[in-house]
Amino acid sequence: MSDKDEVPLESRESIMKATFKALCRHGYADVTMEKIAAESDKCKSTFHYHYGTKENLMVDFIKFLLEGFEEKIIPDTEDPVEKLNGLIDNMLFGLDDGDTHEKFHTALLELRSQAPYNAKYREQITKNDEFIRKVVKEIIEEGIEKGSFKESVDPDRTATIILSAIDGARARHISTDRDVSENVREALNIIIKNDLMGQWEDEQ
Amino acid sequence: MSDKDEVPLESRESIMKATFKALCRHGYADVTMEKIAAESDKCKSTFHYHYGTKENLMVDFIKFLLEGFEEKIIPDTEDPVEKLNGLIDNMLFGLDDGDTHEKFHTALLELRSQAPYNAKYREQITKNDEFIRKVVKEIIEEGIEKGSFKESVDPDRTATIILSAIDGARARHISTDRDVSENVREALNIIIKNDLMGQWEDEQ
Repeated sequence: MSDKDEVPLESRESIMKATFKALCRHGYADVTMEKIAAESDKCKSTFHYHYGTKENLMVDFIKFLLEGFEEKIIPDTEDPVEKLNGLIDNMLFGLDDGDTHEKFHTALLELRSQAPYNAKYREQITKNDEFIRKVVKEIIEEGIEKGSFKESVDPDRTATIILSAIDGARARHISTDRDVSENVREALNIIIKNDLMGQWEDEQ
Repeated sequence: MSDKDEVPLESRESIMKATFKALCRHGYADVTMEKIAAESDKCKSTFHYHYGTKENLMVDFIKFLLEGFEEKIIPDTEDPVEKLNGLIDNMLFGLDDGDTHEKFHTALLELRSQAPYNAKYREQITKNDEFIRKVVKEIIEEGIEKGSFKESVDPDRTATIILSAIDGARARHISTDRDVSENVREALNIIIKNDLMGQWEDEQ
């Protein structure tokens, strides 16, 4: 995340916060530069000056999310099992209160659904996804090195299934009346215990 | 799927086919009744006469997808392991050619992302999801009864993780430059072999 960044750090921080709030309030399709500016103490022209279009602002926002991921979502622990479990919890249940978490992921799903039509979005979403997959992969590799996980575990494949299940649980939570997050959390527990740690349990 | 249906069967079939084609061609956000009519031999007024709005047409289309799921996606076999594996393959890789499969799921993800803002969409998507989960759950229950799967397997939880992983793989495939379907398919194989069938393999 060390791309050259022309927006002054302090301005960017408050622009990103306003974007987050506006996305939660209005959703992606209905959000405008004006509505985003209304969530901050800056005027609309500042937003246009720094970003030009909603599209550019959104790309920087997706990038900002990844920076937040590094700082907030990855648990600060040396134990690979604890780290993996903490990361899954943070991704599934969020760090904010439930309502904000849901509204935010609703806006994200909208943004994501536009990626096939928007090369800039797709490029940044791909970068985020690749980074997050690398983080999970490295936790699993570390777990194998430290002897917490079996040597036969495929880190890349395991990272993919964990992240896909989390993505799917989020999408399902947002677009249906049923929240399957707890169910997916339980199932991932079993996968971690059985397939990663090799702790076979007959009484699951 | 036995709701009272006012659209004559033959008309509905061709309306649904046109909706599918138009969604693949234009995406959800850009599709209109006019563009859908252009994909059929019927005129726009027929579409308006039967459905009134794009929204109503879309709800019936989501319903139509579920009917297709019952007919085409569920493999016709008595063996629960074969049935589960075939179902996963069909859901992950589609029955159409790859390009149509991708375009169609792109439109579906857009539709899904509108569900939080649209009660009718959410209601029908919930029905579809619940039905599909029930199908997977029953295959697993049958597998337990027939001795293919371990007694300790939780059918509901297992169905949830399988479907969430498939959903996540699709969303990732559509919104990034990386297709993780093969990876998810492999990981699900391991889950089925280890956690469901209890065939512990040290060489995964």
